[in-house]
Amino acid sequence: MSEFLADKKRTHSCNALRASDVGKDVVLMGWVAHRRDHGGRVFIDLRDREGLTQVVFGPEIGKEAHELASELRSEYCIGIAGKVVTRVSSGGQPNPKLATGEVEVNAETLHIFSRSETPPFLIEDEIDTREEIRLKHRYLDLRRPALQRNFLVRSKLYRAARDYFHGEGFTELETPFMVKYTPGGARNFLVPSRLNPGNFYALAESPQIFKQLFMVAGFERYFQIVRCFRDEDLRLDRQPEFTQVDVEMSFITEEDIYATMEGLIARAWKDVLDVDLPRPFLRMSYREAMLKYGSDKPDLRFGLELADLTEVLRPLEGGGVPLFKGALEQKGIIKGLRIPAKEAASLSRTEADKLEEFVKGFGARGLARARVGEGGEWTQSPLSKTVTPEARAAVNAALGAGPGDLLFFQFGSFKLVNAVLGGLRLHLGHKLGLVPEGQWRFLWVTDFPMFEQAESGQWVAAHHPFTSPKPEHVQYLGTDNGRVEARAYDLVLNGNEIAGGSIRIHQREVQAKVFAALGLSEDDFRAKFGFLLDAFRYGPPPHGGIAFGLDRLTMLLCNAGSLRDVIAFPKTQKGTDLMTDAPTGVAPEQLDELGVQLKKV
Amino acid sequence: MSEFLADKKRTHSCNALRASDVGKDVVLMGWVAHRRDHGGRVFIDLRDREGLTQVVFGPEIGKEAHELASELRSEYCIGIAGKVVTRVSSGGQPNPKLATGEVEVNAETLHIFSRSETPPFLIEDEIDTREEIRLKHRYLDLRRPALQRNFLVRSKLYRAARDYFHGEGFTELETPFMVKYTPGGARNFLVPSRLNPGNFYALAESPQIFKQLFMVAGFERYFQIVRCFRDEDLRLDRQPEFTQVDVEMSFITEEDIYATMEGLIARAWKDVLDVDLPRPFLRMSYREAMLKYGSDKPDLRFGLELADLTEVLRPLEGGGVPLFKGALEQKGIIKGLRIPAKEAASLSRTEADKLEEFVKGFGARGLARARVGEGGEWTQSPLSKTVTPEARAAVNAALGAGPGDLLFFQFGSFKLVNAVLGGLRLHLGHKLGLVPEGQWRFLWVTDFPMFEQAESGQWVAAHHPFTSPKPEHVQYLGTDNGRVEARAYDLVLNGNEIAGGSIRIHQREVQAKVFAALGLSEDDFRAKFGFLLDAFRYGPPPHGGIAFGLDRLTMLLCNAGSLRDVIAFPKTQKGTDLMTDAPTGVAPEQLDELGVQLKKV
Repeated sequence: MSEFLADKKRTHSCNALRASDVGKDVVLMGWVAHRRDHGGRVFIDLRDREGLTQVVFGPEIGKEAHELASELRSEYCIGIAGKVVTRVSSGGQPNPKLATGEVEVNAETLHIFSRSETPPFLIEDEIDTREEIRLKHRYLDLRRPALQRNFLVRSKLYRAARDYFHGEGFTELETPFMVKYTPGGARNFLVPSRLNPGNFYALAESPQIFKQLFMVAGFERYFQIVRCFRDEDLRLDRQPEFTQVDVEMSFITEEDIYATMEGLIARAWKDVLDVDLPRPFLRMSYREAMLKYGSDKPDLRFGLELADLTEVLRPLEGGGVPLFKGALEQKGIIKGLRIPAKEAASLSRTEADKLEEFVKGFGARGLARARVGEGGEWTQSPLSKTVTPEARAAVNAALGAGPGDLLFFQFGSFKLVNAVLGGLRLHLGHKLGLVPEGQWRFLWVTDFPMFEQAESGQWVAAHHPFTSPKPEHVQYLGTDNGRVEARAYDLVLNGNEIAGGSIRIHQREVQAKVFAALGLSEDDFRAKFGFLLDAFRYGPPPHGGIAFGLDRLTMLLCNAGSLRDVIAFPKTQKGTDLMTDAPTGVAPEQLDELGVQLKKV
Repeated sequence: MSEFLADKKRTHSCNALRASDVGKDVVLMGWVAHRRDHGGRVFIDLRDREGLTQVVFGPEIGKEAHELASELRSEYCIGIAGKVVTRVSSGGQPNPKLATGEVEVNAETLHIFSRSETPPFLIEDEIDTREEIRLKHRYLDLRRPALQRNFLVRSKLYRAARDYFHGEGFTELETPFMVKYTPGGARNFLVPSRLNPGNFYALAESPQIFKQLFMVAGFERYFQIVRCFRDEDLRLDRQPEFTQVDVEMSFITEEDIYATMEGLIARAWKDVLDVDLPRPFLRMSYREAMLKYGSDKPDLRFGLELADLTEVLRPLEGGGVPLFKGALEQKGIIKGLRIPAKEAASLSRTEADKLEEFVKGFGARGLARARVGEGGEWTQSPLSKTVTPEARAAVNAALGAGPGDLLFFQFGSFKLVNAVLGGLRLHLGHKLGLVPEGQWRFLWVTDFPMFEQAESGQWVAAHHPFTSPKPEHVQYLGTDNGRVEARAYDLVLNGNEIAGGSIRIHQREVQAKVFAALGLSEDDFRAKFGFLLDAFRYGPPPHGGIAFGLDRLTMLLCNAGSLRDVIAFPKTQKGTDLMTDAPTGVAPEQLDELGVQLKKV
């Protein structure tokens, strides 16, 4: 079987031959993409990872090869040896769509490495085969040019990132995957320990603490491209295993992080897409992002900014709009979204009605709206009867509303109102064709709140409990948690959070205060993170870092529709692998060794 | 706390300043390595990851800084700003051992980022602190210059390897870590699936099948630096998580693998050590390696070759040596090891006696030996009385023995004899000072047997069941397994196996025959590897690959004594992490969710 390979070296890829190669003896290897027979000859498109070349078998070119060629079918894996000729010289037509379209190879020798049954779907980009079938035969799915391209992009991205970091004086370091289980964070996968029966490792959800320890250890600049694990209920855009570009730096401020990471992104965009990104990236506080876009990851490729109407209406008699009155009384907020007349004109009344259904998905109970008439009056709106002229004028002014504009309103809690109008803004941006193609709008979102309050009243860390509060806010820890802002930052691209990080706490006493503010007792946090606090006894440097979601970054770079298009062997939403049928049952003796057994039902 | 960082940019590393920098204003950051007070001044060695710089605080240089400097202790983390001066100008002496030894910095400003308690051990290379203490405070252990260097080497190795592969047209691809459990291979860690209660993932012991599927998918050249997991009883030189440089190529033969991997190693040695390795590397068949060195990973830095005496003695009356007779009758072998007179002279009779104890660790029951006298006679040997003159002459000739030489003998099974004499050869090589420092002896070991026979008589794959048999040996599959040789190869460096791989089977029918030869029923192998056989229905290319143990490679490059010196956060032999105390117990509810419970005792 290997005689062909032993005798003959591949001379070119299937994307290499040009008119200037005519007359050369070449050896090509790859897969039969198409075959057709014409005038006593066999023509095939031979495909390898680089491209296609037309290969011709004829009785006068090579008798044995021609005979064997009659057996060829799609996806047969073959090697050929022959001579490059122009297509024209043999009576054909150049194919301008193909890089190799001016030439073909007259095959004197043919070797069939392996045959193929008819694949369950065509190896082409635009196919409507169900994803389940494609995932089951992922090795064929991955042959499709679109997926091949995605993984080449991903490979280029690894290379660009690593080159960049090494060039910038970072040390690439690895961290353990089987780590201590710490209750209370994201849900972890657990691994029973055979050598320590009854005990479990967690699969690391990130190298967070280890990278901070690298800083304590004096490595100063660390990076790693690392797999992370989270046992979440899988939504469409999540995977139980994901890849992170993980970074930590010592003796730095936020400005050093911004500059270094902008350099990374610029390098990636240049190397992968040959795009020069303008720098520095825009910045916006969390507060402004929420105010204008109802989101902490605003898509800046289009406008449709929100306006806060709370303080506009509060001074007015009865709040000006009876419907909104309750919100004012219950510490709620009121916000509006204005669709300019031009775009509003394309939204029929029925379509506008449907939006009410859409926002219910975000928890809204309804979606008050109004069309603005010639004189500023509101029409098509239940509000039109109850709003005071004064309030209407004030709202119109705050939203910059003019004739023909369509206004949407939402009132209630800060969280709800922003979720609804932020979601509506995105939806309408796309629906109304306001989102331009091919734009890369990067944005640093900064000045995040340090804590969020759960419905139970319990404070939780908005980022993670190692994030440094702003120094001037340390005084509020534990007494006025809601006022504490963090030295945290997210990098947003076209409405997607692609990275997040923070300057960390490096002072034991501040770390202890934060744990206390979170309601953790000294014993609690010692049990969980005692080793980190111990490490902080020995001269920890000021440090901070960031982590990029590499899968999502690749998806955006590829303009792919799903994470599954940039992960070679993804899991389904049920966490299964349709190709190998993982996970599976295991023998009881196997579990025995691990000190566990299946739960009795 | 961050005002110093916000105001001042670090200008130099602690290894940067030279006489030519005198007069410059500089900002340095790092840790206090040593402090001493002299003539009213405070002198410290400031350490960062690059090196040391002497910093001076004096009342005339900076009053506040000088006062604060009196608080400094070892491992305080600080920043300073000041002016570079020559040591001589301020009455000191240059330190020729230090790159920055001609200068010091007069510190006008001092900022203490954090203080340090007295570390539990000195941050120096030659310390005799117990490893348990060092692992518990790994963040301090990693500050020691020797470990810092190891991880810089490791980082350079990653870089060299990836640059090389990308330059050679390889695509970097990731494979899943949570995979299907396949009984029968190495013992895997298991991960219970919450979404599929009662079912488990395995943590991948290698990306073997996925990388073969990448070849079926047409990626042609794949590499990945990837974590792998094996739940083995941990010996000193094993870790449950280890890192592999994983490679697979299509349309290639062994020669392509050898050439490509020699390029990789040469690049790594050049980039990391600035050593130019001679190529091509030596090659040796498994048979020859076992014959001459009793090992399939021979250390070629020294001689002490073994000789097979089986066929020398067999023709002789009664085997020539009564003691060996049983081995001849029971299909055993007899081998000898000759220590030349010069080295043998340094081995006293007592020391030689001790070797008998040593080889018992390899399963030997004893260690027959003889010193060769002036006339070729054997002394100091129980054999001397029973050996026939004819046999003695034949053995002396086969071993090239002359006066003063010391001969060791072993007889019994092929496996035992080679384990004993191979182990003895290595031991004596080191003991007798025959192993030169600084030599890199690479060797490809080839032509491995395809199968090994377990004591039960069961045949098992010597490499793995996807390894291609030699085409001319396919005919013996199932009927004469012992005769089948594989297209497998190991790369050996100074007696360490650093890589192993093979040309794979790409024909379904051959794969099925190999599974059958291993005693696997069709159902068995379909259940385990059905998806691979399915993939082979669709034109798989001929392919092969290799995997390097990155931890061991780093260890050899660093001349480190243990894998734990090149893994940042290693586990103990009990699989525990002494710093974080992993693994731990978990709450019963947590297990509940996963559908498992602790085994009732």
